[in-house]
Amino acid sequence: MINKLVRKIQQTSAPIVVGLDPMLKYVPEQIKKQAYEEYGETLEGAAEAIWRYNKAIVDAIYDLIPTVKPQIAMYEQFGIPGLITYKKTIDYCHSKDLIVIGDVKRGDIGSTSEAYAVGHLGKVSVGSKSYAGFDEDFATVNPYLGSDGVKPFIEVCRSEGKGIFVLVKTSNPSSGEFQDRFVLANESEYEYSKSLAGADGRNAGLHNRLYELVGRMVDEWGSDLMGDNYSYVGAVVGATYPEEGKILREVMPKSYILVPGYGAQGGKGADLVHFFNKDGLGAIVNSSRGIIAAYQNDKYASYGPENFADASRAAVNDMIADIRGAIGI
Amino acid sequence: MINKLVRKIQQTSAPIVVGLDPMLKYVPEQIKKQAYEEYGETLEGAAEAIWRYNKAIVDAIYDLIPTVKPQIAMYEQFGIPGLITYKKTIDYCHSKDLIVIGDVKRGDIGSTSEAYAVGHLGKVSVGSKSYAGFDEDFATVNPYLGSDGVKPFIEVCRSEGKGIFVLVKTSNPSSGEFQDRFVLANESEYEYSKSLAGADGRNAGLHNRLYELVGRMVDEWGSDLMGDNYSYVGAVVGATYPEEGKILREVMPKSYILVPGYGAQGGKGADLVHFFNKDGLGAIVNSSRGIIAAYQNDKYASYGPENFADASRAAVNDMIADIRGAIGI
Repeated sequence: MINKLVRKIQQTSAPIVVGLDPMLKYVPEQIKKQAYEEYGETLEGAAEAIWRYNKAIVDAIYDLIPTVKPQIAMYEQFGIPGLITYKKTIDYCHSKDLIVIGDVKRGDIGSTSEAYAVGHLGKVSVGSKSYAGFDEDFATVNPYLGSDGVKPFIEVCRSEGKGIFVLVKTSNPSSGEFQDRFVLANESEYEYSKSLAGADGRNAGLHNRLYELVGRMVDEWGSDLMGDNYSYVGAVVGATYPEEGKILREVMPKSYILVPGYGAQGGKGADLVHFFNKDGLGAIVNSSRGIIAAYQNDKYASYGPENFADASRAAVNDMIADIRGAIGI
Repeated sequence: MINKLVRKIQQTSAPIVVGLDPMLKYVPEQIKKQAYEEYGETLEGAAEAIWRYNKAIVDAIYDLIPTVKPQIAMYEQFGIPGLITYKKTIDYCHSKDLIVIGDVKRGDIGSTSEAYAVGHLGKVSVGSKSYAGFDEDFATVNPYLGSDGVKPFIEVCRSEGKGIFVLVKTSNPSSGEFQDRFVLANESEYEYSKSLAGADGRNAGLHNRLYELVGRMVDEWGSDLMGDNYSYVGAVVGATYPEEGKILREVMPKSYILVPGYGAQGGKGADLVHFFNKDGLGAIVNSSRGIIAAYQNDKYASYGPENFADASRAAVNDMIADIRGAIGI
């Protein structure tokens, strides 16, 4: 799947992913009105409105982009009907030959991570049959529990030819609270670290932040499961942290970096240069609200709510142009 | 809800939680056979088998215990039908007046964590109506993204009277890879830390591991949302790490500690003493496989698969006795 992702990025010249993270406030009134008339102001009505909204956006943009990233939380908040829409969205995107990155951020102890991996990327056995529960192509994974929590995903990726993106440095303002701490295994590591001061032109003494340690683990996990040029184990690094992106690009040369935080969260095309490798590959930039709710943005307001999907297409084209310009492809 | 949890623990004298983490291999053949005959070897058939299995166990043990903890991954692996069983299990446990801890380990950037919090602990608005998607009483939360990712859960807890347990030191073998690292904000913190060496009788120089830092944040988050004696912000600390439990008990005196890893993962009653406060409260110990699959354990094999629920009841009684003995209540 990582080879397919790279190929589709090359075909489209669009290293971008559209986040299908619908909130009801983004959905145009005419869609909500119709869905509520048919299903009532219920969870089913909300889920139906979101499904119609997603479908129209996908229909308008699928030929421009390699991949979409539905954020499962936005569906899970509507309970079972919401998750039915999540699954319908995945299946519909597959029918349009889009790669689907499930932004699920799961992670648990071994046997439990295995269940998540099976549910999202693999197949579960029922008697003599087996079934894919959600069937995304990639999933995002939280590393807090260590290798035990990540390796079951890697094993499922190995058997199914799918991939993961591990959270390394997230795009949110407080991501540094834990991720930016300098980490040391013991006292002598501090002395060793100090002896290197300056050698790598970085911090004096302390030079190993938690996100770097996680990044090195991503590189290690991925070295065991390589595609043609990139590994099946990618990383999430926020566009809002370009300096950290530059460090992490070096730490994980073979990992694709999924970059959230572009657009609505404040990241700009020019911030993204160092997330990419010299080959113009190695990163894929996400925008969610900036694309799916483009019609609510002044820049695209002239489309009007009735042409929301055309506004999304225009926003995709502008984002592609911005990123192509920044990385020179 | 934290007050209700404490009250129910006092009423039952059972500071335990039963993990409803069903795997098909735990479900007795006669239940699977019947469900597959009615629904086929399908996701629906598997979900139905798990539902009948859960219901029988809950019926057999609900009067002995204050709370249950369904692990959503075990349901999510069966896709939508599995999640329907998860929701039915929550509702059924509520009908038996059990407190439900959703072991969901969610966590994301702010607006996304808000959606998870709304879906699991709160109510989502649809037009002029609002609905609870899953309606657990507590949820487990992953702290890797920092305060941004946790505070939306706390805000929903405040408005709904519900609670969370934040992952601090997990029970799995590799939890130390990141959680046990010494963490420092900067170089001068190292010198300060060193100056304290011995003062607290702990590590020379370095004495702030990631799990302690997260624990202090849990204490801080919880100080803002207190019940009568305990906060609405609890912590997950594995029974498999009693020394760390002792430290964390001191770091977070007002937080309830949810303790997984007892039984099948190797934790014993005697290991648990330091997770509790002097008042005999402050911790609740989870067992999953040891209870729900008791009939597969040599000790309870005489019950036979047909009496699996009675075996579970016997295992609950033995666990309660073990823990009462260890903590002297």
